[in-house]
Amino acid sequence: MPEGTPVFAGEPLLRVTGPMIEAQIVETYLLATITFQTMIATKAARLVEASQGRGVVDFGTRRAHGPEAGVLAARAAYLGGCLGTSNVEAGLRFGIPTFGTIAHSFIMAHHREEEAFQEFARLFPENVILLIDTYDTLRAVEKVVHMDCRPKGVRLDSGNLAELSQEVRRQLDAAGLHETKIYVSGDLDEFAITRLLAQDAPVDFFAVGTALVTSKDAPALGGVYKLVEVYEQEAGGTRKLPRFTAKFSADKYTYPGSKQVFRSAGAGGLYRYDVLACAGEHFEGTESLLQQVMQNGRRTCPSPSLDTIRERVRRNLARLHPTVRELRDPATYPVQVSRQLAELLEQVRNETLP
Amino acid sequence: MPEGTPVFAGEPLLRVTGPMIEAQIVETYLLATITFQTMIATKAARLVEASQGRGVVDFGTRRAHGPEAGVLAARAAYLGGCLGTSNVEAGLRFGIPTFGTIAHSFIMAHHREEEAFQEFARLFPENVILLIDTYDTLRAVEKVVHMDCRPKGVRLDSGNLAELSQEVRRQLDAAGLHETKIYVSGDLDEFAITRLLAQDAPVDFFAVGTALVTSKDAPALGGVYKLVEVYEQEAGGTRKLPRFTAKFSADKYTYPGSKQVFRSAGAGGLYRYDVLACAGEHFEGTESLLQQVMQNGRRTCPSPSLDTIRERVRRNLARLHPTVRELRDPATYPVQVSRQLAELLEQVRNETLP
Repeated sequence: MPEGTPVFAGEPLLRVTGPMIEAQIVETYLLATITFQTMIATKAARLVEASQGRGVVDFGTRRAHGPEAGVLAARAAYLGGCLGTSNVEAGLRFGIPTFGTIAHSFIMAHHREEEAFQEFARLFPENVILLIDTYDTLRAVEKVVHMDCRPKGVRLDSGNLAELSQEVRRQLDAAGLHETKIYVSGDLDEFAITRLLAQDAPVDFFAVGTALVTSKDAPALGGVYKLVEVYEQEAGGTRKLPRFTAKFSADKYTYPGSKQVFRSAGAGGLYRYDVLACAGEHFEGTESLLQQVMQNGRRTCPSPSLDTIRERVRRNLARLHPTVRELRDPATYPVQVSRQLAELLEQVRNETLP
Repeated sequence: MPEGTPVFAGEPLLRVTGPMIEAQIVETYLLATITFQTMIATKAARLVEASQGRGVVDFGTRRAHGPEAGVLAARAAYLGGCLGTSNVEAGLRFGIPTFGTIAHSFIMAHHREEEAFQEFARLFPENVILLIDTYDTLRAVEKVVHMDCRPKGVRLDSGNLAELSQEVRRQLDAAGLHETKIYVSGDLDEFAITRLLAQDAPVDFFAVGTALVTSKDAPALGGVYKLVEVYEQEAGGTRKLPRFTAKFSADKYTYPGSKQVFRSAGAGGLYRYDVLACAGEHFEGTESLLQQVMQNGRRTCPSPSLDTIRERVRRNLARLHPTVRELRDPATYPVQVSRQLAELLEQVRNETLP
């Protein structure tokens, strides 16, 4: 293991090689695409972690940063471990499972709440998940237990969710509706979910909106895209050689040269640290994270399915130490810089700042 | 002036009338479109307020919630008072003025910083705004003052922006470059701008990224879209009459019926308060804010130009009391509910919750 300085962790690393203008023109698109979806997938993973095995579903499109951001957030949320989304466009475009319950307006459009429940059950017999907080949650659940069908679920969207879910569960169980699931929604985030479960709220599914699709407490991920080397004709020769570049502003600097990231796992499979290194380096027993996916503008391998990526995310998260996965004050995952890269940085610094 | 209860302020109000399914299908699209752009325009207005007459430019696309969110944010930022954007797609699509300076990569792609400056001046003789913080800001400004041309501006992107801008201004002025403007960027928001100006930083333009396009400290605006009335065949008659609807959850309720918003201005033109009222009400001497723009799926008037909307925003902001425009702990703009609407709410509550 090389000595080195801990640097940033958690940002995806991408290497783009090409004519200057081509590499430049994709910069903003790549940053906006990758950092946004990485951030939302991370938020989804935090929600899933908090939910301790209950399902988490994306219900956030209306609060996303424009309609298209809602579709992309649904994709990222699924990759991060959500079961699916209420965004039917994301379902159509990406094949993500879609989830829905009744809207309040459907209830309000009917003269009586129980008529709305019956009509919904007639229209969607396979998916009878009834919204029970439009007027009075405990009266509504009395109507639910007297329906002709056995509803698949009920959804609570307001009030004291811990107390209401317990009372609703009692009433459902008393009526023999043990299989009827309880969905909750309403300004949830990973901390609200943690509190609900600490109060033994018998919730089966958490539907999360604003906090998920905007990553509300951390709505930007500071990814950057930097020029690290320029290939130039060798003086007096025919070869093209890299000239390494870096930025040395007053309070920031960048690492020069093409890179590889090496990930080391310990006994038991838990990841121990990553090493940010020069592209040509090798570290015995580590996994190289950067893999080529395009050449000359074409993919060199098929794009993995969403479910393949989602499963990789799940396996990778499971291999992080629990202290790194803590929702509050997580430990920083160690990322180090290889000695060769640290030396290259100093060399470029000396050449650039005489 | 009617008596009433203060309610929410600052949310746009929109009335949609149509067959249930049509009014429903536009819900999420409208919410995601209007709340996002309202939020970004508000953030832009705060940045413009902080800048005390200097220019504010959107440089945030790379940190937006996906590429399309960056284009919409550029539009909203312009409406909120920004001078323009670095997003050329927004320039193309909406005719918004575009702004740019050099990228760090352009400097780094050249062997020497002064070569990059000269090359940029050759390529963009009308727009020589030079980025001077790639290696050493004060050395870079020495190169700027020795150029053949008179640069239009320089940009600082790191370091102590207050001190550096003062030293850069001194050096530019000493060389007779009084017309060369100073742009600053680098994790700015309205509070950083306020601090810089409080330190007499001689900045002409603020380029704002992440904080603007994500509305970082308030990344979601809680707009809602609710069913307020349903037209139904009169019992035993031929007319269709409205049945008013509202939601009465444990901790939230909505106001029933079609609405109008009446805005009252005082002597001197400052807005005093808005009244949220039933659609048919009238209040002498007020302005009705809701105006019809579509009928049967077609616009009833041409869409105003961005500059027309931007000018309306500017005039409206100028008519808010300065305490409402405070950046920290602003006064709440008073919004009241008309007596008729308050009575309608109680009537619907009594009918709905027996």
